[in-house]
Amino acid sequence: MKDAFYAYIQQLQDTITSSLEAIDGKAQFQEDIWKRPEGGGGRTRVIENGNVFEKGGVNISAVHGELPKSMQQYFGVQDADFFACGLSLVLHPKNPMVPTVHANWRYFEMYDKTGAIVDQWFGGGQDLTPYYLFEEDAAHFHIICKKACDTHNSEFYPTYKKRCDEYFWNTHRNEARGVGGLFFDYCKATESMTMQDWYNFVTEVGNSFLEAYVPIVEKRKEMSFSKEERDWQEIRRGRYVEFNLVHDKGTLFGLRTNGRIESILMSLPPHVQWKYDHHPEQGSREENLIKVLQHPKAWV
Amino acid sequence: MKDAFYAYIQQLQDTITSSLEAIDGKAQFQEDIWKRPEGGGGRTRVIENGNVFEKGGVNISAVHGELPKSMQQYFGVQDADFFACGLSLVLHPKNPMVPTVHANWRYFEMYDKTGAIVDQWFGGGQDLTPYYLFEEDAAHFHIICKKACDTHNSEFYPTYKKRCDEYFWNTHRNEARGVGGLFFDYCKATESMTMQDWYNFVTEVGNSFLEAYVPIVEKRKEMSFSKEERDWQEIRRGRYVEFNLVHDKGTLFGLRTNGRIESILMSLPPHVQWKYDHHPEQGSREENLIKVLQHPKAWV
Repeated sequence: MKDAFYAYIQQLQDTITSSLEAIDGKAQFQEDIWKRPEGGGGRTRVIENGNVFEKGGVNISAVHGELPKSMQQYFGVQDADFFACGLSLVLHPKNPMVPTVHANWRYFEMYDKTGAIVDQWFGGGQDLTPYYLFEEDAAHFHIICKKACDTHNSEFYPTYKKRCDEYFWNTHRNEARGVGGLFFDYCKATESMTMQDWYNFVTEVGNSFLEAYVPIVEKRKEMSFSKEERDWQEIRRGRYVEFNLVHDKGTLFGLRTNGRIESILMSLPPHVQWKYDHHPEQGSREENLIKVLQHPKAWV
Repeated sequence: MKDAFYAYIQQLQDTITSSLEAIDGKAQFQEDIWKRPEGGGGRTRVIENGNVFEKGGVNISAVHGELPKSMQQYFGVQDADFFACGLSLVLHPKNPMVPTVHANWRYFEMYDKTGAIVDQWFGGGQDLTPYYLFEEDAAHFHIICKKACDTHNSEFYPTYKKRCDEYFWNTHRNEARGVGGLFFDYCKATESMTMQDWYNFVTEVGNSFLEAYVPIVEKRKEMSFSKEERDWQEIRRGRYVEFNLVHDKGTLFGLRTNGRIESILMSLPPHVQWKYDHHPEQGSREENLIKVLQHPKAWV
């Protein structure tokens, strides 16, 4: 399973980065291969200063070894080894009419000291963060998410859509990071779902990513925008930073377990603003976005 | 003591904001008075888009009531009430040759349910974050810090200088946030120091702030700078954000205990950049700054 999934994310990284380069038409991903001293490593691919993408990364990693102390405590286990691999991506477009997107698909195995697997699961998801809300774009993204889910179980979309809204909640701002999508974790074998079934589900979601995001980019990337709209995008990116540095479990976990900092923090936007107590005008498109983020809605 | 210290920080806020407005010559502090539903409130003063100060805040607050659950756990007490007041300031100058400064002076009282004081202490400090290092500026700031300390105890400066270097350490970057200054906490009555002695010490540090910072601003505020130097400032401000959102106990405490978000996050810089895996040129002034931040030095 781990070999199959790692082979899958390697191929998916190639597919996604070559598609995004074709859309951008200017910038190319720069690749960094890195090794983790305790075992494993990764392949980070970052794009900067493109026509479409101002900054973004599509990274894979596969790490293994002794389970770090902090993770042992977190999982309530002792003397365990682990293997974890996954693909993480974040794309920050230049044009404020094009939403930021985040996705992650990952697989985890835990072993006892004889090397026997004692636990294994998949996790991941994909979610959209617009700066100007085009309802049809949010609906399109969610329709593709739902289509990927429905082939496997009609409960998946409503369950993982709700979890996404809950997970990407900026508690100190009392609003969602964006308009959501899917979030799932600890997908383990049950009577109705084998690990192979979960593999099929997670890879189906991974395969749906370009279909979910690319049409939105194509539709919005040539739209004109003002200095004020760009400022609004940078202010909203501040909320993205706040979520990732204050609340995101993956980011904090990476920082606390001595992960590769530059790969973890590639998620942070290129240009960001913080203004004191900023409130958009009543009835403006900016205010409309905030209202939707404060009350996550059904998009499908 | 609480009335005396609150009166002191009210007056200090006036002194500091009027001095800074005079230096800026353009922008004025905007005042927001806010109330805390559970008891107390504050007076937030924020400056934006000045000639000298791009963004900054000089805030006081005095809050009281039942000790929040998270604080009860933190202090290992039950059924306690509290009073806390303090002044917090952060100034982000426009010119990258002028350092960012942070200061905080605070007083805390804890009560049992009969209203008797069961514990009380002072805390605070002040520290400097340059983007381009002028060694004479860092030395000046530390000399004033030392002078304020030495009147009270010759051990204070070396002790609190070291604590400052330790506290403002960006662990995930393995570097200090800036060139330090003073940091002290839990300053309680002992055989050699009464609470009145601590009051005298903390107010002496508070009174030293303008002498420590203003001459540096005056010296650097008219210096010319390039687009590249401004970019460097914005990249370094990203590290400031990382420290404040990932590590700073005060910020995280405020976010988790439902503090006034806009007053807490006024510390975040106005314009910030994140570039992937950015490294300054060998032998450059930018690289020199990083080397100093990686190995905190003695400035006095």
